[in-house]
This record gives sequence, structure tokens and C-alpha cells, in this order.
Amino acid sequence: MRTLFHQQLDALTARVASMCGRAGEEMARATEALLSADLSLAEQVISDHEHLTAARAEAENMVMGLLATQAPVARDLRIVFCALQSVADAERMGGLAVHVAEIARRRHPAHAVPKQLEEKVAEMARIAVDLANHARDAVLNGDTEQASRIAREDAVVNLLHRQLWAAPMEDTWTGGVECAVDLTLLSRFYERFADHAVTIGGRVVFNVTGRNPLRSAPAQRGTA
Amino acid sequence: MRTLFHQQLDALTARVASMCGRAGEEMARATEALLSADLSLAEQVISDHEHLTAARAEAENMVMGLLATQAPVARDLRIVFCALQSVADAERMGGLAVHVAEIARRRHPAHAVPKQLEEKVAEMARIAVDLANHARDAVLNGDTEQASRIAREDAVVNLLHRQLWAAPMEDTWTGGVECAVDLTLLSRFYERFADHAVTIGGRVVFNVTGRNPLRSAPAQRGTA
Repeated sequence: MRTLFHQQLDALTARVASMCGRAGEEMARATEALLSADLSLAEQVISDHEHLTAARAEAENMVMGLLATQAPVARDLRIVFCALQSVADAERMGGLAVHVAEIARRRHPAHAVPKQLEEKVAEMARIAVDLANHARDAVLNGDTEQASRIAREDAVVNLLHRQLWAAPMEDTWTGGVECAVDLTLLSRFYERFADHAVTIGGRVVFNVTGRNPLRSAPAQRGTA
Repeated sequence: MRTLFHQQLDALTARVASMCGRAGEEMARATEALLSADLSLAEQVISDHEHLTAARAEAENMVMGLLATQAPVARDLRIVFCALQSVADAERMGGLAVHVAEIARRRHPAHAVPKQLEEKVAEMARIAVDLANHARDAVLNGDTEQASRIAREDAVVNLLHRQLWAAPMEDTWTGGVECAVDLTLLSRFYERFADHAVTIGGRVVFNVTGRNPLRSAPAQRGTA
């Protein structure tokens, strides 16, 4: 039989997972708005972010309630502790989706991404959204194998990030300054989004094993 | 007489404050490295960041220990809770200083910032570092007046951010694409750094009053 405490812990875990999934959806929609220069979709993404902000506040209240009434220790405390940090990551992931949507809105009716780079941006976005979904599933099932997979797939995001970063520096670049700036920011937003998913996955490993695989990873040193 | 618990809480608060101060120092040194194209200083900033990462890990262990052994409630719990979040912000602020130093390193021996914008970047950096120091003092003294001041002064950072952002889009821009990209990123790094200081200040207000002044501030919606 589950105690009330463990029911509360399960509810908190489900909340973290659903926030990861929601962040993935926001980023998928923001990318669609970006690549199709869809102003109304971009504005929806921006205004819908309040749901994720509210979900984080609720999750924090759940944590406060749990700590105050149940005083968890050892592994249970670790799970509560990680949940608190992961909801912050998930909200920031949603914030990055908002930034993508804001670029789409600012450049409308023009397209922010040059035709020849659309496919690369779409691929980067697709993998980033996948990582958010992997994080959701890994959190929900306490699945360390899936959590570790996030870090491996993130390597592809980093590779695409370097390629997109380099594109405006080439002699063949004809996109102009504004487009170069937007592309650099977009690439950074997707890369940071994916990094947060990696961080959440690292916490799943920490919850289960007590070891934090990210402590030694310089890429996770908190890049704002 | 202070209980052991309150001594631990004071130690935790002092740790948060010292991390804010340290982040400010890192950003000041990173900016010096940037504006004087000083490679060795840039590399020092990058390698010194491990101290802030370690300080965060220690602070998290202090929090875990406090929660497990003292089971704080009400206002005490709120303080512990906020400390946990603020050390994450302070570490990210240090991470942003590292990003500034990385740009200095990548562009060395060239200067990343065009001569005519050096003063504006220096001013933005100076205010951002001031805000980190205000955050340090506000945390240490539980000073809500100083905490509120951070948000007011952040408005100047946001203004400078918009100006720096616009500079490469002007017809008179002769700095080229790479320089435009770096300037955009630098401006964003300082702006984010200042935002984290605002967030930490908001938590000081929350600790004292129980109300979070940032919940309604869209600029704080977690942007990476």
C-alpha cells in the first residue's frame, strides 16, 4: 500500500514529467511558427507560456507542502530536491520556446531562417523536442537508460549548433547582419533547451543511483 | 541564543551572499579580459569557474543536511528553499561570465568589441556587477529596500541591451557579421546576468514578506 507521502511524491514526479512534455510542445509550436512565419501561432506560444509558469509555481508549492508536513529524508528528500530543480529547468525550456517565437514575431512577415538552412534548423528543433520527450518519460518511469540516452543524443544538437554558428561567418554568406544575429540566437536557444533536458535526465540518474553524472560535465556549468 | 539550526541557516545565507559576490568578481574580470583582449585573464576566469560550481554543490549539500536533520517549516523552510534556488542563479551568473571570457578568448588577439561601443559595454558590465554586489548585500542583510533597488537599476541594463542590440542593424555598421554576432551575445549575457541578480533580490523580498514580487514580472519567465 502506498502512503499518502508516496502518493504526493508520485504526483510531484508526474508534474515534473508533464512540464517537460509541455516544454517540448511549446518548442515544437514555436519552431512551426518560425519556419512558416506564422504570426498568430507565434503569439499563441508566447501567451501560452503562462501555463508553464503557473505549473512551476504549483510544483514549488507541492514541494513546500511536502517538506513542511512530511520532512522526507535520504532518497525521498533527494527526489523532492531534484523535482524542485527540474521544474525550474522545464520552465526555462518553455522560456526558450518563447524566445524562438519572439524572433518569428519580430521578423514577420519575413522568414527569420534563410531557405538553405531551414532543414538544419528543423532537424535541430526536432531533436531538441525529442530530448524533452525523453526527459518526460525518463522522469515518469525513473528510467536511467533513457536518461543517459538524452546526453548521447545531445551530442548531435551540439554538432548542429556548431554548424549553424559557423554558417554566417563563411564568405558565401549573403543573409546580412540581422539574419546572422537571429540565426546565432536561435541556434543557442535550441542548444540551451537541449542542455536543460540533459540536466533533467542527469537528475533521474542521480535519484536512482545517488551519483550525479553532470557534476563532471563542463557543458552543464550553468550557462544561464 | 542562536540554536544550531539558526547557525546553519546563517551559514547557508552567508554562502549564498558570497556566491553572488564571487559571480560579480568573475564578471568584472571577464569584462576586463574582453575589453583589453587579455587572453591569460580570460583563461583564468574560465578555469576559476570551478570554484563557483563547487560552492553550489556544497550549498546544496548544506540544504540537504538542513532539511534532513532539522525539518524546517514556515518561514525557515522558505529561507532554505530560496537559498537553494539562489545558489543556482549565482552559479549561472558565473557561467555567463565564462561565456564573456570565451568570446574574449576566441577573438584574441583581436578585440571583440568595436572601439566606439567599448564604453557602452563597459557601462553595462559595471551596472551588472553592481547588481551582483547589491544582491550579495541584500541576501546577507535581508534588506528588502536594497533588493528592490536591484530591479529598478536593472531597467538601465535593459535599456543598454536594446541599444547594443540595435547597433549592428544600423546602416552605419561597419563591424561585419562576426562582430555583430559577438556583440549580440555579449549584450545578452550581461542582460541575463543582471536578470539573475533581480531574481535573487526578489527572493529576499519573498523571504521577508512572503510575497514574490517576480511572479508577475514577465521579464523573469526563465529565459535559458
